[in-house]
Amino acid sequence: MTLSLTSLKNIPFIRQGDNLADILVNSLRETNIELQDDDILVLAQKIVSKTEGQMVNLQTVTPSAHALELAEKSGKDPRIAELILKESNEILRVRFGSVVVEHRLGFVCANAGIDQSNVKGDEDSEYALLLPVDPDKSAKEIRDALEKITNKKIGVMIIDSHGRAWRIGTVGICIGLSGIPALIDERGWQDLFGYTLKITVVGVADELAAAASLMMGQAAEGTPVVHVRGFPYPLGEGSLKELIRPKEQDMFR
Amino acid sequence: MTLSLTSLKNIPFIRQGDNLADILVNSLRETNIELQDDDILVLAQKIVSKTEGQMVNLQTVTPSAHALELAEKSGKDPRIAELILKESNEILRVRFGSVVVEHRLGFVCANAGIDQSNVKGDEDSEYALLLPVDPDKSAKEIRDALEKITNKKIGVMIIDSHGRAWRIGTVGICIGLSGIPALIDERGWQDLFGYTLKITVVGVADELAAAASLMMGQAAEGTPVVHVRGFPYPLGEGSLKELIRPKEQDMFR
Repeated sequence: MTLSLTSLKNIPFIRQGDNLADILVNSLRETNIELQDDDILVLAQKIVSKTEGQMVNLQTVTPSAHALELAEKSGKDPRIAELILKESNEILRVRFGSVVVEHRLGFVCANAGIDQSNVKGDEDSEYALLLPVDPDKSAKEIRDALEKITNKKIGVMIIDSHGRAWRIGTVGICIGLSGIPALIDERGWQDLFGYTLKITVVGVADELAAAASLMMGQAAEGTPVVHVRGFPYPLGEGSLKELIRPKEQDMFR
Repeated sequence: MTLSLTSLKNIPFIRQGDNLADILVNSLRETNIELQDDDILVLAQKIVSKTEGQMVNLQTVTPSAHALELAEKSGKDPRIAELILKESNEILRVRFGSVVVEHRLGFVCANAGIDQSNVKGDEDSEYALLLPVDPDKSAKEIRDALEKITNKKIGVMIIDSHGRAWRIGTVGICIGLSGIPALIDERGWQDLFGYTLKITVVGVADELAAAASLMMGQAAEGTPVVHVRGFPYPLGEGSLKELIRPKEQDMFR
């Protein structure tokens, strides 16, 4: 069994309102890939957010008193602090220049996933990029459009890079998906000796996100889409919610 | 650019003292893969630990008073609690039936990585499997042996499955490596617009571990080795230590 992940060629610079499905079809062709049933496309959050107009001109942001306080504590630009507050349900920690939050989408992450690299507007202003409004919905819309064009049954996932509590280095994680399972629940399966497994729920969507992230690079490579063939589980519906540990089961709150 | 991950066929049941390099060469042949320079083999912790004799017959374990207390608090078998204490530098949390520890190898994990699935001895006793004594060293020994046999320059990684603080589902993570970078430090690289990236250090070894874990399955599939071709960074020396966040930078202690 082989899993293969290929970076798509010639993804152009993305702007608000761009039709991602058309861009993907074009890039698949230029990469010499013909979509098959059960293929998956993994997209960097950034290109989805840009098409949705999630870029914010920092000149339009006025920091509140709370934001000024957070900026002081974290060393962040007060306008970024304001956006972090707006995008978060709760501030969990401020440490080492990072603001760890529960994002409005429910997951825990640093700085509310707000990004300033590879983000530029048409004028000479500073911009920040927020995460997609509803990444599961974005993934579903892109998937529906692609399935309509290609007549193949596929999965679509949107990923971001997150730091970890106890380990160095960011890794790709899933922030939205459609047509892919989020988790594989192996509880009740039997091991090689017939013992029943008790606790294994595997975060397959996050494992695939990490794999795809490897093929995206982070800086100037500009390969924000990865084609996946050979995902070893049947495609099926998953959602971001399944991947988020409920607050009351969180080991650290 | 394509990254491909292939589960090796016909890895036999592993016993203490088995020569993993010979087993891998044989399974590569049966999977029709000829090793090339820059290929990587990713091994499940379990087969490495077994060859090293890290299986413990629970009949030989006598729980201390401290272990009895931990067993009471966590609901674990007192003999497993004893092994968790022996394998850990520090107990961090006991919650929801899990014991979160700083393992003697330095990383934070649940239950000291002690495993009871797919573990069986020759007699009718209960066994538990500890992690390899020094996984970086194990990876290096396996790599050296394979390079000697094949005359190719390769990487070897040993992985385990870990839970996460805030997300549901286990994911593959690196616990030992040789000939592969642990991290790619992109600080100072420039983005598409020439802005300098400030904070991105990517956990490429953990991303690859997650990818390989997808192709191993967890229960009875018995595919504990994955061959990797097309890793998008130059091979080089990495170590487990680089992946572990120093205690003083830990966001949650």
